[in-house]
Amino acid sequence: MATSDARSGRRTLALGVDYGTSSVRALVVDTATGEEIATATWTYSHGTDGVIVDARDPNLARQHPADYVEGFEKSVRAAVQAASQVPGCSADAIVGIGVDTTGSTPLPVDHRGTPLGLLPEFQETPDAMAWLWKDHTSWSEAAEITRRAAERGEPYLAKCGGAYSSEWYWSKILHCSRINPKVAGTAASWVELCDWVPGWLTGNTDPGSMARSICAAGHKAMYNPQWGGLPSEAFLQELGLPASYRRLYTKAVPSDRRAGSLREEIARRVGLTPGIPVAVGAFDAHMGAVGSGIRPGTLVKIMGTSTCDCMVWPMDQRLEDIPGVCGIVPESIMPGMYGIEAGQSAVGDIFNWFAARFATGGPSGGSAEDAHRRLTEEASGLKPGESGLVALDWNNGNRTVLVDPRLTGLLIGQTLATSAAEVYLALIEATAFGALKIIERIEQYGVKVAEIVNCGGIAEKSPLVMQVYADVTGRPMKVSRSSQTCALGAAIFGAVVGGAHTSVSAAQAAMTGVKSTVYTPRPDAVATYRRLFALYSRLHDAFGVRGCTGSLDDVMKQLIDLRETVRRGALA
Amino acid sequence: MATSDARSGRRTLALGVDYGTSSVRALVVDTATGEEIATATWTYSHGTDGVIVDARDPNLARQHPADYVEGFEKSVRAAVQAASQVPGCSADAIVGIGVDTTGSTPLPVDHRGTPLGLLPEFQETPDAMAWLWKDHTSWSEAAEITRRAAERGEPYLAKCGGAYSSEWYWSKILHCSRINPKVAGTAASWVELCDWVPGWLTGNTDPGSMARSICAAGHKAMYNPQWGGLPSEAFLQELGLPASYRRLYTKAVPSDRRAGSLREEIARRVGLTPGIPVAVGAFDAHMGAVGSGIRPGTLVKIMGTSTCDCMVWPMDQRLEDIPGVCGIVPESIMPGMYGIEAGQSAVGDIFNWFAARFATGGPSGGSAEDAHRRLTEEASGLKPGESGLVALDWNNGNRTVLVDPRLTGLLIGQTLATSAAEVYLALIEATAFGALKIIERIEQYGVKVAEIVNCGGIAEKSPLVMQVYADVTGRPMKVSRSSQTCALGAAIFGAVVGGAHTSVSAAQAAMTGVKSTVYTPRPDAVATYRRLFALYSRLHDAFGVRGCTGSLDDVMKQLIDLRETVRRGALA
Repeated sequence: MATSDARSGRRTLALGVDYGTSSVRALVVDTATGEEIATATWTYSHGTDGVIVDARDPNLARQHPADYVEGFEKSVRAAVQAASQVPGCSADAIVGIGVDTTGSTPLPVDHRGTPLGLLPEFQETPDAMAWLWKDHTSWSEAAEITRRAAERGEPYLAKCGGAYSSEWYWSKILHCSRINPKVAGTAASWVELCDWVPGWLTGNTDPGSMARSICAAGHKAMYNPQWGGLPSEAFLQELGLPASYRRLYTKAVPSDRRAGSLREEIARRVGLTPGIPVAVGAFDAHMGAVGSGIRPGTLVKIMGTSTCDCMVWPMDQRLEDIPGVCGIVPESIMPGMYGIEAGQSAVGDIFNWFAARFATGGPSGGSAEDAHRRLTEEASGLKPGESGLVALDWNNGNRTVLVDPRLTGLLIGQTLATSAAEVYLALIEATAFGALKIIERIEQYGVKVAEIVNCGGIAEKSPLVMQVYADVTGRPMKVSRSSQTCALGAAIFGAVVGGAHTSVSAAQAAMTGVKSTVYTPRPDAVATYRRLFALYSRLHDAFGVRGCTGSLDDVMKQLIDLRETVRRGALA
Repeated sequence: MATSDARSGRRTLALGVDYGTSSVRALVVDTATGEEIATATWTYSHGTDGVIVDARDPNLARQHPADYVEGFEKSVRAAVQAASQVPGCSADAIVGIGVDTTGSTPLPVDHRGTPLGLLPEFQETPDAMAWLWKDHTSWSEAAEITRRAAERGEPYLAKCGGAYSSEWYWSKILHCSRINPKVAGTAASWVELCDWVPGWLTGNTDPGSMARSICAAGHKAMYNPQWGGLPSEAFLQELGLPASYRRLYTKAVPSDRRAGSLREEIARRVGLTPGIPVAVGAFDAHMGAVGSGIRPGTLVKIMGTSTCDCMVWPMDQRLEDIPGVCGIVPESIMPGMYGIEAGQSAVGDIFNWFAARFATGGPSGGSAEDAHRRLTEEASGLKPGESGLVALDWNNGNRTVLVDPRLTGLLIGQTLATSAAEVYLALIEATAFGALKIIERIEQYGVKVAEIVNCGGIAEKSPLVMQVYADVTGRPMKVSRSSQTCALGAAIFGAVVGGAHTSVSAAQAAMTGVKSTVYTPRPDAVATYRRLFALYSRLHDAFGVRGCTGSLDDVMKQLIDLRETVRRGALA
């Protein structure tokens, strides 16, 4: 039992608050050990599972800002109360707060920084609320931004993979300014959720001076100190943005900085000590990487419906642009380091799609969970290569390394004996091959992957997936010790701004770790997957790389040969 | 009510006997109209659903010859009795018998033509029984025959698509001679089932002089008058066949010839007139084509688990070899005409595979029939191109035009929204594209397809499949009037040898027809499928044609473009 204050026997604690898509989670952590003392979640009360949707427009996804306020109070009060019951712990031992949120989730705010959705006149206006990360109403504006940046030869897209997304900051602001002049005319600025929460907690939501997260700014708003911050006024003007939106802020900072001190009014409502420091916010995946112990050489894979891959690289060492990698942003994950973000647009989503659509017997035929369980059990008994199948993992396009949303899935090698479990395994393998492509691309540009730590639902729940990833990549797969790495990462920044640690690295050393179970590559499986990956790569290039030519006439036969070799037992 | 003997008011009838894989069917038909007067089936009593299998060897499939004898007696007696009850009909109005069977299904026989499986010493010996068409124990012998024929530059394979099959006559004889010397030593000859039944009915099973079907000989035993009948003794010797098997017969004839007259002993047992003529036998698909009204210009598609495509071509007109088409054999379907046989190795089998494995929710989750019904209903509501999917129909290899059993399936274009019904439709479309490839290949060599008549289970049961075939090929799909076209075809030959008609063509004109429902191509769907077929063809060549190169980088995007065009309603 480590304690953080040996003399008093009292622990030093930090609070992490994680704003997800449907709920908010508060986590109280021991700053000396990372031990999770207490946690509480609160599900947003507006919309469907916290998301305001529009039956006429499937692209629309908004959140009511009132949920953010109520969510903080409900979840934090509960977590603080629960922590107080733990021996050696008390509410006033909480020394700092960190906040992570989904993103890009910008809110239109008035000149004082109040979200328009909180004003009486806009309480029922979706355009005045938070534009949730997965809102895709701005798809045409995204294409326009990409096109104009390319035409003008702007450098902005090089750091975000070559294409601007409809999920991102400027697309949403531009779209709103076109479709809702009343909201646009009232909004003095647009603020990312991860910036607004710390601003509100500390009483500084002034759009001109509040702290802005470099994580959000760099990955979603084309901010980079290299070109002086946000995109040029000329560029924003060309897009047709109102004059008031062309110089929204000039500086963005990492999360080891204080956004300010906790306001007394809020502190009292939730049982915290007034005036404790609140860290600058950041996105959930990036703080999750910190909570998983990211450091140079460590690839953190946040494995969920899609996958986010994070690495860091010391800023005093040279780092080239890595083609096809979504984002390289200074200090977006760790202070003093470049944050490198890559990802796969669908991983768990592909498994869920297959289980729900092809293994339940239709809408009324059993649950997707049952299907996952059955498929996993059967697939676990299969040898690599035994099915003769290989798939491409592009059912939702390819985010890294091809950066092409208009790619689709492919399955090859099926016979009349192919089973659902074999296809399920082939899809898992396909996502692992996609993961290996990302690793190869990053290493090709000098960033060595020395260790892989996985977190998120799939990493926790599927030994099958983890073993396939180990076998396909030929590298051990570790799993983050915490099952709430995003909130833990936020708490780490809370601990740093609260003075419990002198640096994020020091806090990580004390507060993070991996589970004892490590999935190690099985040599026979590695050998088989090396052959399968060669075939995956040929299909990957043939269907995904512009201008690629070459013969595929042997692919089906190679798969049969491999299948026959494996069945004869000559290869695992 | 047409009658065939207007003066007496009595009808003239013929009997067709159709030996299938699990049962035998007897059909009594009015020779003037083709009206089906009475029918009876009998399921073989040996083995599993009539097939003797071996748990240790999934390739083995045999049938007990006793089932053929009992099956004739039981089915024919019942059909003849039932026919006798019909006004204007009587047993002695049956003027001739035709027989069709599965094939290649050869039986080892003694010097008198008695199947070894009927001898007391061999009654329990599978190798002494009939080697059913789908027995694949001789796969290595098939490869050896293909290799040696190619090495010697023999012309034999040009007429059977370039590769000899494990399902065929010589592979089976060679395999048996290697693995069972006792059976091989006792067997004086090997006789196709379609030859043995007429021989047994007429009392001439002498292996040297009995009638041999040119359909069986030409399609399965490499018989061709062009090179003097069966393959040369030198070639058969090189294969290592016993000396006694190197000159099994010298002449094979079409089915408008009499094999002989019905033996009194059998006639009495089944209630037929002794001495009525029995036609030379042939294979079920070929007689099915006759029963569907095949003539020059008519493509008959026998649509079942796999598909057999038949055409005929007048022998007084020049016909080149058609590369990739399984068989071109003089008089194998119609006298005086070349029989052209092509086929797809899996059609209904692919639909059944998908329904059973990917739409029932696993072994315990609902029946395949339910799944077919549900998928068909949903797929019927989809527009061509709407799914953005395209598939290759090679789950069981490709018989025509690539002649490559080592090809496998492919599905491309799937997203997270792809439904099971969309995949089901894509698989139906894939088989239709495969069918169009065959039509194109045959027409390319001068054989014009003026009309398509479908028969078999799928043609009868699935308007969805028929409509897709019409839309994909751009040609009307007719369906044969009879639902038992093989037995009807056999009865037509019975009618001809019985003197009710002077020729097969004349008999067909009187006795066959198509249903009133004709599936006609929908112009919008035809236009969409033309675009999809272009993509299918590129994939077909890329994965199936040796040495094919070219770019596929636009295939996924073309599918998305087509999907979006169709969804906008710009194209059906």
